[in-house]
Amino acid sequence: MSKELTSRAEDYSQWYNDLVIKGGLADYSAVRGCMVIKPYGFALWENMRDQLDKMFKDTGHVNAYFPLLIPKSFLSKEAAHVEGFAKECAVVTHYRLMNDPNGSGIIVDPDAKLEEELIIRPTSETIIWNTYRDWIQSYRDLPLLINQWANVMRWEMRTRLFLRTAEFLWQEGHTAHATSEEAVEEAERMLDVYAEFVEEYMAVPVIKGIKTPNERFAGAVETYCIEALMQDGKALQAGTSHFLGQNFAKAFDVKFSDKNNKLDHVWATSWGVSTRLIGALIMAHSDDQGLVMPPKIAPLQVVIVPVYKGEDSKAIIDAKANEISAELKAMGIRVKFDNSDNSRPGWKFAEYELKGVPVRIAMGLRDIENNTVEVARRDTKEKNVLGIDGLAANTRLLLDEIQLNMYNKAQAFRDEHITPADTWAEFVKLLDEKGGFISAHWDGTAETEDKIKEQTKATIRCIPMNNKEEEGNCILTGGPSKQRVLFARAY
Amino acid sequence: MSKELTSRAEDYSQWYNDLVIKGGLADYSAVRGCMVIKPYGFALWENMRDQLDKMFKDTGHVNAYFPLLIPKSFLSKEAAHVEGFAKECAVVTHYRLMNDPNGSGIIVDPDAKLEEELIIRPTSETIIWNTYRDWIQSYRDLPLLINQWANVMRWEMRTRLFLRTAEFLWQEGHTAHATSEEAVEEAERMLDVYAEFVEEYMAVPVIKGIKTPNERFAGAVETYCIEALMQDGKALQAGTSHFLGQNFAKAFDVKFSDKNNKLDHVWATSWGVSTRLIGALIMAHSDDQGLVMPPKIAPLQVVIVPVYKGEDSKAIIDAKANEISAELKAMGIRVKFDNSDNSRPGWKFAEYELKGVPVRIAMGLRDIENNTVEVARRDTKEKNVLGIDGLAANTRLLLDEIQLNMYNKAQAFRDEHITPADTWAEFVKLLDEKGGFISAHWDGTAETEDKIKEQTKATIRCIPMNNKEEEGNCILTGGPSKQRVLFARAY
Repeated sequence: MSKELTSRAEDYSQWYNDLVIKGGLADYSAVRGCMVIKPYGFALWENMRDQLDKMFKDTGHVNAYFPLLIPKSFLSKEAAHVEGFAKECAVVTHYRLMNDPNGSGIIVDPDAKLEEELIIRPTSETIIWNTYRDWIQSYRDLPLLINQWANVMRWEMRTRLFLRTAEFLWQEGHTAHATSEEAVEEAERMLDVYAEFVEEYMAVPVIKGIKTPNERFAGAVETYCIEALMQDGKALQAGTSHFLGQNFAKAFDVKFSDKNNKLDHVWATSWGVSTRLIGALIMAHSDDQGLVMPPKIAPLQVVIVPVYKGEDSKAIIDAKANEISAELKAMGIRVKFDNSDNSRPGWKFAEYELKGVPVRIAMGLRDIENNTVEVARRDTKEKNVLGIDGLAANTRLLLDEIQLNMYNKAQAFRDEHITPADTWAEFVKLLDEKGGFISAHWDGTAETEDKIKEQTKATIRCIPMNNKEEEGNCILTGGPSKQRVLFARAY
Repeated sequence: MSKELTSRAEDYSQWYNDLVIKGGLADYSAVRGCMVIKPYGFALWENMRDQLDKMFKDTGHVNAYFPLLIPKSFLSKEAAHVEGFAKECAVVTHYRLMNDPNGSGIIVDPDAKLEEELIIRPTSETIIWNTYRDWIQSYRDLPLLINQWANVMRWEMRTRLFLRTAEFLWQEGHTAHATSEEAVEEAERMLDVYAEFVEEYMAVPVIKGIKTPNERFAGAVETYCIEALMQDGKALQAGTSHFLGQNFAKAFDVKFSDKNNKLDHVWATSWGVSTRLIGALIMAHSDDQGLVMPPKIAPLQVVIVPVYKGEDSKAIIDAKANEISAELKAMGIRVKFDNSDNSRPGWKFAEYELKGVPVRIAMGLRDIENNTVEVARRDTKEKNVLGIDGLAANTRLLLDEIQLNMYNKAQAFRDEHITPADTWAEFVKLLDEKGGFISAHWDGTAETEDKIKEQTKATIRCIPMNNKEEEGNCILTGGPSKQRVLFARAY
């Protein structure tokens, strides 16, 4: 049998860890809070990254690379930014090691102390805006539409694989514009790109919205976000896009001359998604048997497992399986024919189920005689006997169907878990018993938001885009409110 | 006119810097020794990376990601490795900043000192082999063929853009094998992959060889390398592949049980190339007018520059240029139609020459009337009038021809600069007056190698693969020698 998995009902959090580790996505490392992304997990990230990269380029962006280390003084330059980010960072203070004169290994050379400490980037606004000062002089240099794929580091106290790690991989877009309107348009465009990616490729429905000032990025004028719902009823912020106004341009003195030779500070956005998305993917779709990968980004879309009966059958089955495999590849399908002889078919079935491979094709001698194979889909666990003729085309259709079905299932779950609440008692009861998003009125103050968080651990996930205006009373204070907002407990 | 460039004859080193900076590849940053890779330079790196990544995958490798930070104690575990790497590293000692109680910005929180310092990876053998211990138990887990694309950091005292920077981007392959033979085979295979990439895609001929013990990677049993020649007659190590024996497996206690259940340490390789390759590319091909990009990896292969005469011609020229551009794109050619109205054609010509775009198509109203365009190639600066009919196919052929011509030219230069020397006087004279590789006898001792380096700054670049046996006398000591080796001054 395959590796034992904890069920969701038993221990949701352990179930998640089991899937990540036993599914071969990632592992803990020797460095506190930092993970190793294993080949299967990295192949998933590559598929996500490549698709996002294509979407960024299709919307006119180019990639660049900025230094890993940021001078400490840079972080103090934007007042709101330093408040939000200054605390938990990895600090480089020395630049040389030496052999311990007492002979016990190596020590830090005390003479090699940096004049100014360097911080491993928790995000790159400061170093990038310090660079943009040299790149932008005139309106002809705008818009500047740059993205960076990078590792970043935030010294989180409590970490969880993919969801919250000290080091993580991400992309960060940093754009500069001549007008406020253009910058807002860009921030909203990238939110749409994120929503499209997460919904179409990850099959996870999201709610697009705006963060309250409390939850805004440090240094932003407006933070847009996409929020997804996990199977345990908790929300997960899947991506953010920030309109930064002229805050960073002012902090780093980045000005441009317009067509009339008038000088002004430029307008900025930044936006990012990270390996955290993999956590969202896992928790949105997987089940007690393991991961369930959406076909569009699955590292492996189809696995072919041979069922041998004696040596004679091996050559015949292998030949047919290789033929089918070649046909699937020719259709652009990512397929693996697993004829390794070190495990039984049953073990392989469980292993690929655990890894969430969307389609499994099993074939024995009898199947080949009938010109058929057994096709099992991972999402519903349905099995069907399909003819070998036309199998590639039918597999292509099946992958599309699985992708759609996964989205629809996640969307139905999400929609069932957006519940209005009109009294505090109802609000608390919903949070504890049902979970999900709770749509409720709020008096618009940070104090109330803080109190609700203290009492229930729920936060305002967002004010949905194009939110309906509706008169009402704050769920906690009874104060007047003009619209409902979405509350949830969140990752 | 375009930006002023220093010529090679005037100041080679300044010429190089001008090309990097004015050509838009990279720039200095606010952090000592760290560069910003600008969009044009990063697009070049992406093309190189994508091709290498494909070649790694075609040879059975998968990607993964390991932590940026390495516990200090790990570096002491492999004795030879620590000697080679321990010195110039960025050291993380603290994990939190705080507001200065005196109100002057932010300071490092003295209470947030790490128990054990962490080193920003200068290379990842130690953290990876510490991980492999958990991944490898049996011969069934072998070979393990993993690559990582990552940023690394070495606190170099003297830095040069791309050639030697504190932070740089690279890939590092780390493989584990059941036998010594398989590991050696892998190290040689990857050397071949590097040679093929640099020659076929970068159009830079290389010499494959083995490093002397003096120049070996710290911790390796054998270091293979590819060496390229720059236009100033200096050599550049373009990539290395190491057979690590069981050194790291022993240091990190990584054992496997073979088919007979016998335990043994595994055998290892590591291999890497970096953004340094971009430096090699520039210095192998460029001229006093700017960069010269090999078509296969050029960010932009063709630029179309319109030559307007009055507003009337604009619509006609634009329509035809867009048509041609679409045809080129359909052939998979990376093309840009630059109809920006903020600069004159002459300025654009110089700008794209500086950027090294392989083919420039210029077209005015008269050309269109004649159903022709002017096609200029960057490598030879030849201009030809070509018919618009069949232009895409002819451009494709021209790009291939440019690629080949660049390689041939570099190879002829390299071959002219491999010179035998049989006396010390000849050796020194060649080094000072001609440069390039000098093929000479060496007595095989590290002492002699050191003395030659002290006296001439030349090092043994490699002992070429399949080197011819030949009796002779060491160029310095006159001691007996069985083969010539290649000396050069190097980057």
